[in-house]
This record gives sequence, C-alpha cells and structure tokens, in this order.
Amino acid sequence: IRTKLPKVGTTIFSVMSQLAAEHGAVNLGQGFPDFDVPQRLVDALADAMRAGHNQYAPMTGIASLREAIAEKTDRVYGHLPDADTEITVTSGATEALFNAIHAVVRAGEEVIVLDPAYDSYEPAIELAGAMAVHVPLDPATFAPDWQRVRDAITPRTRMLIVNSPHNPSGAMFGAQDMQAIAEVLRGTDIFLLSDEVYEHIVFDGARHESALRYPELRERSFVVSSFGKTYHCTGWKLGYCIAPPALSAEFRKVHQYNVFCTFAPAQHAFARMLREAPEHYEQLGAFYQSKRDAFAAQLAGTRLECLPVPGGYFQLVDYSAISDLDDAAFCRWLTVEKGVAAIPLSPFYARPPAGQRIARLCFAKSDATLAAAVERLQAL
Amino acid sequence: IRTKLPKVGTTIFSVMSQLAAEHGAVNLGQGFPDFDVPQRLVDALADAMRAGHNQYAPMTGIASLREAIAEKTDRVYGHLPDADTEITVTSGATEALFNAIHAVVRAGEEVIVLDPAYDSYEPAIELAGAMAVHVPLDPATFAPDWQRVRDAITPRTRMLIVNSPHNPSGAMFGAQDMQAIAEVLRGTDIFLLSDEVYEHIVFDGARHESALRYPELRERSFVVSSFGKTYHCTGWKLGYCIAPPALSAEFRKVHQYNVFCTFAPAQHAFARMLREAPEHYEQLGAFYQSKRDAFAAQLAGTRLECLPVPGGYFQLVDYSAISDLDDAAFCRWLTVEKGVAAIPLSPFYARPPAGQRIARLCFAKSDATLAAAVERLQAL
Ligand SMILES: CSCCC(=O)C(=O)O
Ligand SMILES: CSCCC(=O)C(=O)O
Repeated sequence: IRTKLPKVGTTIFSVMSQLAAEHGAVNLGQGFPDFDVPQRLVDALADAMRAGHNQYAPMTGIASLREAIAEKTDRVYGHLPDADTEITVTSGATEALFNAIHAVVRAGEEVIVLDPAYDSYEPAIELAGAMAVHVPLDPATFAPDWQRVRDAITPRTRMLIVNSPHNPSGAMFGAQDMQAIAEVLRGTDIFLLSDEVYEHIVFDGARHESALRYPELRERSFVVSSFGKTYHCTGWKLGYCIAPPALSAEFRKVHQYNVFCTFAPAQHAFARMLREAPEHYEQLGAFYQSKRDAFAAQLAGTRLECLPVPGGYFQLVDYSAISDLDDAAFCRWLTVEKGVAAIPLSPFYARPPAGQRIARLCFAKSDATLAAAVERLQAL
Repeated sequence: IRTKLPKVGTTIFSVMSQLAAEHGAVNLGQGFPDFDVPQRLVDALADAMRAGHNQYAPMTGIASLREAIAEKTDRVYGHLPDADTEITVTSGATEALFNAIHAVVRAGEEVIVLDPAYDSYEPAIELAGAMAVHVPLDPATFAPDWQRVRDAITPRTRMLIVNSPHNPSGAMFGAQDMQAIAEVLRGTDIFLLSDEVYEHIVFDGARHESALRYPELRERSFVVSSFGKTYHCTGWKLGYCIAPPALSAEFRKVHQYNVFCTFAPAQHAFARMLREAPEHYEQLGAFYQSKRDAFAAQLAGTRLECLPVPGGYFQLVDYSAISDLDDAAFCRWLTVEKGVAAIPLSPFYARPPAGQRIARLCFAKSDATLAAAVERLQAL
C-alpha cells in the first residue's frame, strides 16, 4: 500500500531505547525519568479507582482537574483561563499537539516550525494535508531569528509552532522573543501552537515565558502542557491544552472524535495533587538544576563538551574532540560499543547543519544512573 | 474562525448525560456500566504502578499485553495474529477507529458507512478530507443490504466500516454477511474497518462473526476492540487494533504521532487479566443476557415495545404507542419530564428514516438502576 507518511519511520526515541535494551546500555536517550512518580500520586490514583471513578470522564476532562489547572495557571502566569471553555485534558501533550494542528490547519496550508523541532510536529502537519516550513534556529545558540520567521510567512501560513524550554536544546525564550512573536503575528490570522511541556523545568532563576502571560499572544494560541514531564510519569499520558473559547471549541471537536476522553482515575489524582502539593511544581526547577549541575560537573572529566542548559532535562554535548562520525552514527556507536544511549540531533531537522557534532543526553535519572553513564563516558 | 467540522456539535452521549445529571434522571443514555470494574483489575493496576511501570510504554503497547491479546484472539477466533507486527494498543477503540481511517484514507476519497452508524466515524472521515457515503440498514431489522453497498462503491471508495454487534441496534452479522462482504470487496482495494467492541456481548448462543475468522477479510481489515466494554471500565480508555503487518505499519505511524502510547499501568493489568481470568470474557454474554432478559420482562409492563437484542448492551424501544414526538424531542422529554435518559437514533443517521419512533436504552446497569428506570417508564 502507498503510505500517506513516506518520511515517517519508527521514532528515534523508540529506536534508541530498543538499542539500549539490546546492548545493556545506560539509557540517556529517550526522555523519561528513571526515578518514580511521587507516592502520593500513586495513592491518589488508586483511591480514585477504589472510589469507582472508572467510567467515561467528561470529554473535556473532569471539572475539578480543569479548575485546578486554571488556578495553577493563574498562580504561575497571572492569567486565569476559564475552566469550562478554555481547558481540555488530553492523552498526553502529544495528543494535544495533534489535535491543535488538526483543529485549524487545512490541506494545502503551511505551518512554520523552528528546527531542530520535536519529531511529532511534522507528521501531524502532513497528516492534515499541510506542509511544514522549516526555519532554522541559530546552530550555536539555538536562538530564533524572528526576521527569518517573518520571511517564511506566506498567504498559506496558518500556524507557527514554538517550544520553550526547547527540546532538544534546552534554550528558552526571553520576553523579547515573546514581543517578537507578537509583532510577527500581528495583523495575520496565524495561530500559535506553544509547546510548553518543560514549563516547570527552568534554571538559574529564569522565568518561563508562557504564551499565556501575553494577552496578544494567548488570544491566538493553543498552549500545551504535560503532567508526565512535571510529575515523573511519562507513561501516564496526561496533558492538556489551554486556548481561547473559539479555538478550544475546534480543538474539542477533534479530541471528541479522536480519543473522546482520557483515563479517568489519573484525572482525579492530578486534581488533588495540583491543589494539595503546589510545592512539587514550584521546586521542580531546583530539583533538576542540581541534577544538571552534578551531571555537568562529572562530564567536565570527559572529552565531551557541555552546552549551556537553561531549561528542560537534556544536556547537549559536543563530541567533536572524540569522533568525526555524524551524530546518528556516533549515537549508535556510543550505545552499542560504549554502553551509553544518546539521541542524535539530526532527526530533529529537515536539513541538519553540516558538521554538527552534538548528542543529547537525558539527565532525568537517578544519581546512580548518571554516575554509571559518566564512568563509561570517561573512557571515551 | 471557520470550522473544519461544520456538522460537529457536542456528541449526543455527552448532551444526554449532562441533561440526565441536571434533571436527576436515571441515566440509560450514554453507554457505560454503573457497576464497577472487577476488583482484581483495580488491584493489578495498582500493583503495576507500585512496581514502577509509570514511564512510557512501547509505542505499540507492552509485549505481554500484545501477546495476551494474540492468544485470546487465537482461542476465540481460531486465528493467531503476530503480536509484534499486527497488534497495536490504543487509547480506547475511538483512537483506533480514528487512526485506521487516517492511516489509509486520503483527501477526496470515500468511506462507506452503514446507517445508523456510531457517531465518531463521519467526523474522523471528514477530518481526513474524505467523504462518508451512507448506506442505510433495513429500518425494521437493521440488516445490511449488500447489493446497496456494492452499488455505493465508486473508484474513490477506500474503506468500508462495519460494526457487529451493532450500536445502536444490537444487530449481528451472520456467516452469510461475512461472505457477502468478502464478495463485495473482492478485486477492489477497499479496506475493511471492523468495529467489534461488543465482541463478547452476544446472546442466545450466537457466534460473533469477527472479520479475523475470515482470511480473505482479515488481509484487508483493521479490527478494533475495547477493554472498556468487556471489563466495565469505559473510563480507562484502552483498546486495540489488529491488522496485517502492512496495514499495522501505517496505523502505527498515525498512532505514534497522535498519542505515542497509552497509560502503561493499565496495560500490565489487562495482560494479567486476559491470561489469568479468561472466564471473564467467556461469561460476559451470559452476564449481560440475564440483564437483557430481566429488563425486557420488566418493560413488557410498559407501553414501550422492545425490539430484539442479539448483542451489545442496548435495548431499542419503539415508543409510537406513547408519543408522536420525533426521537430527539421524545428523549429530551423522557429525560426532563419522566426522569429516564435515553439516546435518540437520529444522530446515528445522515438521513433519519421518516417517522421512526425508536429510543435506545442502555441496560449495562445494576438491577436497582434498571428497576428505578422501569418504575418511571411504567408511568408513561
Ligand atoms: C514520546 S518518546 C519521546 C520523549 C521525549 O519527549 C524526548 O525524548 O524528546
Ligand atoms: C464515547 S461516549 C459513547 C459511548 C457509547 O459507545 C455509546 O453510548 O454508544
């Protein structure tokens, strides 16, 4: 059969996790914690099941969770979204990204993505019959060049996708980027899809510049977040989308007929967690900052060069002192021969920059896992 | 903003559940049990969380669950699908239906659906840029007329969607229907999407005619099933799709970038349940048959006329002895004024048959709930 997605293979994250398993490598590839979800969340989920919350949740998510998300958003970003008309709970951020694209992007239209870009954006765009237009970030700093974004806009442009803190680089937007986005989009009917799944994993006192902070942006934005990233449970697949009522209405039409609703007991658990333990997300930056710093300090004893990590849970390393292999070959070699799985950057690009020698290491790992990885990396 | 789905509003199931809640009606509308999931499943899910299965599952589903599904399929239908290449675990059957359509149906193509049809088919088809072609089932018996299906085929037809046991009618295909489908599709490149979520809820010794029993059909089929329907946990949102390797490969491309994977702990729970307690699905028909029979016996004391229910957990009732209202108005009235929520049939049709006076009542309810409903229905 003729495929609708000729460019799509198995995602690099699955490929490297499987290679890691086959070769007994320490898996710093696919982004997930190897420590566990907070015990109180497990207990709250078990309580919800035992209380009988096992039938369909409302299509948009249970009211107490949507209200807790609204309150958290107000608390953190100074904006209170309407729980009834602006918040939709999804099967992870991935479903939210997919729905937002399918809700408003039509066949023949264009969506601007900033490369390197998370690998689900383009297939979702293509499945909607649209085309991804790739604008590169600065290859050294991963900063956006907003003039290039402006130049990429055509009458067919329907959406701009941004991601801060950025996967894979950890780069974060500053207030001036948010102003620039507002200026670029002003007077157009282009929607903003803001992937903010690492919103709470920010370092060194920096402030996460959510699109929700900016009235001019949020009126055209789908803002996507993830409980999996914030609560160490990537396998629970719960996320959400915040968008103005008219956009949420279109988003929900897709969600309703895509998955209808999400695993109900987890919704009850997160509704409690958000309200009863706000310190969890408040302290998440500090929690990961100490991992980032310890990992970077240990990597200083290797021939890998660490790039700065403003946010997220990935450390980029330049390996050009060690190898001339391209990044895909290097990461394979590192996994198979050296026992540490990493993710190459090239799959995040339509056109990978020539000669880029960078690999991504996930530091959402226990101290023991990171130490085991560093021991192997020291032998490089 | 201009909607991509102009025909889509809030699904009738949500509308009626909300109306039921507002008016304190006994809710026999939206299809979900009001009794609970088996305790051993709750315990198995809690065990899986406590054992730390809280990070991403493999994109296709955990191996032990896919293997358990394969074994069950062999046991029940005499066909052993390959767990690695033919089975994909999804966020409920709804996601599986959506993915199958998006995997192979292209813009400008046509998909044949048999009316009355479950309400998620057409929006998913339209979102793929394709068109639903509606072929009516017999208005009295809900039997398909395969000659009409054959006549509806054009060079643009890419898929036929069938559903047995059928929602809303409970009608079931016999072996002759499966032969007829094979004949109709022979020599074409039309895929079959077989929605079999009520596969284990079949009565009176009838055999569920899964497309998986028929080699000629299964080579072109996506067969979709649901744990929610079989294990009384519609809110757990776990289902799966069985399709040949080439079709599964396309299906998985969509799944990978739609939700990526599903709630991991539930996958572990069902892997155990399928293997350790096959009697659950074996006895499900008998379990629901006694509900069906008790409910029908009680309804005999009302002015509602029961239609036959070969499978599924819905009782259709003809209310023409009571009211001349159209079905939407009747179900509203029944909910608001008489305290029993039902689902009208018209939303399942592109063109509802004139003068049809039928409502759908869900009997997946405790004896007490059904008795409370009947008491109110006796007053009609
Ligand atoms: C869905 S698997 C990918 C996880 C992730 O976000 C990453 O590794 O970048
Ligand atoms: C997704 S809500 C609808 C449940 C159902 O299958 C029905 O009531 O027909």
